[in-house]
Amino acid sequence: MAQPTRSVTLDAAGPQAPPDPLDLATARRRLATPERLREFYAPRSIALVGASDSSGWGRFVVDSLRTAGFTGALRPVHPKRPTAFDLPTVPSLRALDEPVDLAYVFAPTHAVESVLEDAAAAGVRNAVVLASGYGDGGDAQGRELERRLVEQAVALDITLLGPNCLGFVNAAGSVAPFGLGIVPPLRRGPVGIVLQSGALTSNVLAFARVHQVGISLLTSMGNEAVITTADVVEHLIADDDCQVIGLFLESVRDAPRFIELAAAAMAAGKPIVALKVGRTEAGQRTALAHTGALAGDDAVVDAAFRQYGVIRVRSLEELLVTCGLMGSGQVPRGRRVGVVTASGGACDIIADRSTDEGVEIVEFAPATTAALREVLPPFAAAQNPLDVTGVILADRGSAQSTLGDVALNAVVDDPGVDFVFNMLALPQAEPPDPSIVDQRVAAIAATSERSRVPVVNFTAACTDLSPYAQSLLDRHGLHALGGIEFGLTAIGHALTWHETKAQGCQQSHFPATTRQESGFADMRDGPWAEALGREFLASAGVPLVPAELVTDADSAVAAALAFGGPVALKICSAEITHKSDIGGVALGVSGADEVREAFGRVLAAGRAATSAIDGVLVSPMRAPATELFVGVTVDPSFGPVLAVGLGGVFIEVLHDVALRLLPVDPAQVRRMLGELRGAAVLGGARGTRPADLDRVAEVVAGVATAAAGLGPALQTLEINPLRVDGGDVEALDVLVVTGPRESGGN
Amino acid sequence: MAQPTRSVTLDAAGPQAPPDPLDLATARRRLATPERLREFYAPRSIALVGASDSSGWGRFVVDSLRTAGFTGALRPVHPKRPTAFDLPTVPSLRALDEPVDLAYVFAPTHAVESVLEDAAAAGVRNAVVLASGYGDGGDAQGRELERRLVEQAVALDITLLGPNCLGFVNAAGSVAPFGLGIVPPLRRGPVGIVLQSGALTSNVLAFARVHQVGISLLTSMGNEAVITTADVVEHLIADDDCQVIGLFLESVRDAPRFIELAAAAMAAGKPIVALKVGRTEAGQRTALAHTGALAGDDAVVDAAFRQYGVIRVRSLEELLVTCGLMGSGQVPRGRRVGVVTASGGACDIIADRSTDEGVEIVEFAPATTAALREVLPPFAAAQNPLDVTGVILADRGSAQSTLGDVALNAVVDDPGVDFVFNMLALPQAEPPDPSIVDQRVAAIAATSERSRVPVVNFTAACTDLSPYAQSLLDRHGLHALGGIEFGLTAIGHALTWHETKAQGCQQSHFPATTRQESGFADMRDGPWAEALGREFLASAGVPLVPAELVTDADSAVAAALAFGGPVALKICSAEITHKSDIGGVALGVSGADEVREAFGRVLAAGRAATSAIDGVLVSPMRAPATELFVGVTVDPSFGPVLAVGLGGVFIEVLHDVALRLLPVDPAQVRRMLGELRGAAVLGGARGTRPADLDRVAEVVAGVATAAAGLGPALQTLEINPLRVDGGDVEALDVLVVTGPRESGGN
Repeated sequence: MAQPTRSVTLDAAGPQAPPDPLDLATARRRLATPERLREFYAPRSIALVGASDSSGWGRFVVDSLRTAGFTGALRPVHPKRPTAFDLPTVPSLRALDEPVDLAYVFAPTHAVESVLEDAAAAGVRNAVVLASGYGDGGDAQGRELERRLVEQAVALDITLLGPNCLGFVNAAGSVAPFGLGIVPPLRRGPVGIVLQSGALTSNVLAFARVHQVGISLLTSMGNEAVITTADVVEHLIADDDCQVIGLFLESVRDAPRFIELAAAAMAAGKPIVALKVGRTEAGQRTALAHTGALAGDDAVVDAAFRQYGVIRVRSLEELLVTCGLMGSGQVPRGRRVGVVTASGGACDIIADRSTDEGVEIVEFAPATTAALREVLPPFAAAQNPLDVTGVILADRGSAQSTLGDVALNAVVDDPGVDFVFNMLALPQAEPPDPSIVDQRVAAIAATSERSRVPVVNFTAACTDLSPYAQSLLDRHGLHALGGIEFGLTAIGHALTWHETKAQGCQQSHFPATTRQESGFADMRDGPWAEALGREFLASAGVPLVPAELVTDADSAVAAALAFGGPVALKICSAEITHKSDIGGVALGVSGADEVREAFGRVLAAGRAATSAIDGVLVSPMRAPATELFVGVTVDPSFGPVLAVGLGGVFIEVLHDVALRLLPVDPAQVRRMLGELRGAAVLGGARGTRPADLDRVAEVVAGVATAAAGLGPALQTLEINPLRVDGGDVEALDVLVVTGPRESGGN
Repeated sequence: MAQPTRSVTLDAAGPQAPPDPLDLATARRRLATPERLREFYAPRSIALVGASDSSGWGRFVVDSLRTAGFTGALRPVHPKRPTAFDLPTVPSLRALDEPVDLAYVFAPTHAVESVLEDAAAAGVRNAVVLASGYGDGGDAQGRELERRLVEQAVALDITLLGPNCLGFVNAAGSVAPFGLGIVPPLRRGPVGIVLQSGALTSNVLAFARVHQVGISLLTSMGNEAVITTADVVEHLIADDDCQVIGLFLESVRDAPRFIELAAAAMAAGKPIVALKVGRTEAGQRTALAHTGALAGDDAVVDAAFRQYGVIRVRSLEELLVTCGLMGSGQVPRGRRVGVVTASGGACDIIADRSTDEGVEIVEFAPATTAALREVLPPFAAAQNPLDVTGVILADRGSAQSTLGDVALNAVVDDPGVDFVFNMLALPQAEPPDPSIVDQRVAAIAATSERSRVPVVNFTAACTDLSPYAQSLLDRHGLHALGGIEFGLTAIGHALTWHETKAQGCQQSHFPATTRQESGFADMRDGPWAEALGREFLASAGVPLVPAELVTDADSAVAAALAFGGPVALKICSAEITHKSDIGGVALGVSGADEVREAFGRVLAAGRAATSAIDGVLVSPMRAPATELFVGVTVDPSFGPVLAVGLGGVFIEVLHDVALRLLPVDPAQVRRMLGELRGAAVLGGARGTRPADLDRVAEVVAGVATAAAGLGPALQTLEINPLRVDGGDVEALDVLVVTGPRESGGN
């Protein structure tokens, strides 16, 4: 081990000579690669540094390790006490005879630095730091302390979780150095969970254990000084023990990397299910154009998640039931369901909830109906959703399932269903003759096994699955979702996830084109004169209403004459972005006299506002038609975002916009149009010509590409309105704003 | 007992001479009064008629009675077997030495009639009928069988639950003749539950028992041949054991009575919580005007429930958590909350969910913050929502609550909060030293007790409360809601319920005014000519745009001249309801020549459609302003319904309407306007003058009153548009349709 060298590096990188922050970020990343995290999360020996028998945290960690079945070496380290947790201590990590794989550091904030030096000296490469009072305090001193902690970790080559962190639970690896109680049993399984709030751990584990949701790794994140949420997600994508990734997110810190990982998870077939809080905190940016005002930060998060297949949930229950379904091996991929229950009331609820989730309860095929008629009591209807009725329950006593099994067998064979939703009624405790219920569950398992389509089992309401019920299901490899409500929500998520996967996520790359490369070398910082914006869009192939920039009344009249019919006149100046407000627009102007008068009026209005006038734009008037709003702004986290909405009240009153991160293709834009609440207007409601949606999508995607072509200089590109009249699509008004951004998307 | 008489009555009312259906309905109601139902649901002796040991139903009933702690007499009745359920049988009810309070009839359909005769002969006044194959079969034979069953019950004076019914569970009275298994323990409490699907009973009881939701009476309804859901609701309103009414509804059979009962329940302070299914089944009526098309049946149900304070839920969990809260004695009445948790993540989720539910997380008062600072660890923020952090959890071990208790004490005293939302972490099983946790819960109870505001306790997620946790809470009189998700949904419902209560429900009475009384004796069946509709509304004080009905071109010109400015001409005929479609409207017509030409054109268009032309209406054109749609139609179940929406895309594309049952007052109409998604338009968005909402509400309420004045003849009354320009409110177009309805609202 090269302790002295590392120690020297630390000294060299001390407060007097702080390293370049970018270099520090890069160095930090090297500590949190999937390779390093695989090692970090699977220690075979653990030192407990600074915990004594009287410490609650210490007791919890020891208890959690026991609950997880940890069989590795546990080495208490305490400067004063000879024993802790019935084990002999050593006074310092340096006194260990051989390095441990992980140091769990209980030491108070002021002592952490020297503990880490001891750790490095002892050849320890991994540490959990419990102490708080770093960046979490919100003060400059704490932030500086945290920056120094990162420097130290980098210098010492220590992979560090925290500070202000409770640790983790690696159920797959039977090791849980975790600083709060874990109620046993700890259920192993395919779900990897990352929590930006460690206090939720016990709630997550408590729900998971009574709903058959098995965990591979659960980690709390603390301040993410070294290991970040994104690092753990990257690790989980690579980790074969994990098939589903569940997140509790307070913030998305490195949005471009998160999106990159979302695309990678999708490619790897591992769904990410995220409870991202902050849905309702407005957090809207101040912006020149109104896209920013319309598209709050959370709306961008929401759009980004949807676009890249991150399943967004709003409750702990929804998080875990969805993770449970996605990891169950019986995940629906099509929207047509066959429902089997023994309750008419449950059928009613399921019918409503299915519609909510876009699940279609199809009619059974004649063969299915015929097969059902043979087994159902005469008064039961052989229809979907199916209620086999409680008759058999009463008439056969504990062999209650026969009818349900036969019915399930018939329904899985129906050629029209994509999956079967099968309600279970499970005993809480072992019945007097367990073999009957065992046979019954075995029959369901056999049917699921041979079924062409997934069979999703569920209970009526979200109540705990008892240990007996879970063992019964586990024995036969079945999973049951926790209630109709969360179960159908989870199914809705699964279906959307598969559809997003089938569409293929384009991975977001902010184009690196610079202003010079884009060919618009004369661009300025700030708003552009409209004529320049038009020129730019025209060069990108975006269709615009014809316009002529004129600087005298005669030319205005000539232009109007050339266009024929009434015209619009608009002042053209980079200094004037709200032309109408200052009287810089004249609409429906006809005849030489009127044009001359309007030219003079518009120009005078402009001159009253600024001396930097480029002239007046003369355009032919267009008949009323459907109007869209198309805008690209730059989200400080996620980078450029396309917003599309219908004009008028839709955007102004209802704030009805669809959002996507760039890049987008026309197929994405078509989906955006379909998401609008007023989508029917594009289909020709209100007497307009039905829009040629392919043409609209092509034009809007072209606008987005043009905006992206401005590179990091882009601030806003807005077309309001984009006029749509059948296949005639034209930008009527253009606003472009460029300039340095305060914080870039990447 | 007067058996012979009753038997004679039955014979007299046999199939040859069916009684008047109205008389039958009245007679039926006499069997299901609150007085009769109090007796029905509290039998001290029960006969089991036709069940043997080999019957599953029979075993379930006996088991359920045992679970409920029934100590009364149980008398098996079987024609062949000497014993059943270890008790001696009698061959017939007639052989009983004394009448039982209730007969549970297991006999097959064909035998029910004679069993009921035996029952009457034996002096039995109450029966549950399990057999199906009556109205439930959907065929005419079954319906006829059911009608005869009602006749028989009436003739024999037997209060009958069912047929096709599993029975009931009277937890308050310790008697549960119920035909499916009940998992013990059966928890008694303030919630009365009525299920139109008996199969849900076990699911309801299973959830209730692990969430501290105590039941007074739970009854399944079967076919409701005699006792109906409404009857039971009326009984529960009168029943002191019941404080909250929970319903599972497949249909609202007698809507006016249901609304009457909803108002009575509100007046009695007993919330009704209803899981009404069929939310998504379109079920829209065909109607001449488009209100009907916009307001589907379920939208009317939804509006009626909201208007009369019936809390509508969408899941079993939401039903029971809401009932649990409403019966807990700690029901919030104001929207400002103080939140106490030991988890930052929970605070995040609560903040989002509070906003969803309109709950405001206020800033703590300085005194609260100061009190909290004294006890919180230095790194914890003394803010709302409060995270007391897990520090104390670790440092004090099992006395974990000290900090939380102190914090709760401070927060309940905050003058700015209307209630406190307090998160509990409860042990699953009794800890080694139960006194510590007991003290902790006692401290919370003491704080709740002395608190000025309700303290609502909840757990983080919807997991079962263990028997130990429930006993702990019960001992101290505390209730805990099942998770943040359902807990905040329930709180949202409670707040809305209290607000509706404070507003006061007007009870719906369909005015009995007849056409003659309304003064419009010359009304016809079908659509009215617009001039008549205008006259009718004008007589009711509704402001209309001036109009003159003319029959020749000269008069049209004279009318236009008198109005000044451009005018509108509209063909006036009872036969033409879509004037624009046939070219019967001319807008913006100016000058004598144009008016003359337009008159001729409009008249010709009308004549091409019908010979029944009243003339042409000439009105002044109005400048563009905000337009409302106001319509009254008659729902086949609920009677007359007022729909109000904004014109244009709001109604045509977004179908954005607010609905209310009549009668409404202006205050109701103001709330309707506030519910519209486009409400901002009325506030002056898009450059219009802000609407004088009081004036709008007054006019709309006047329209509704006028419509109601048409009495049972009303089919549709529609104003489209009602023009609103600040305080200028005017009907521009009027459609009235009257005529016989196929089924009346009452």
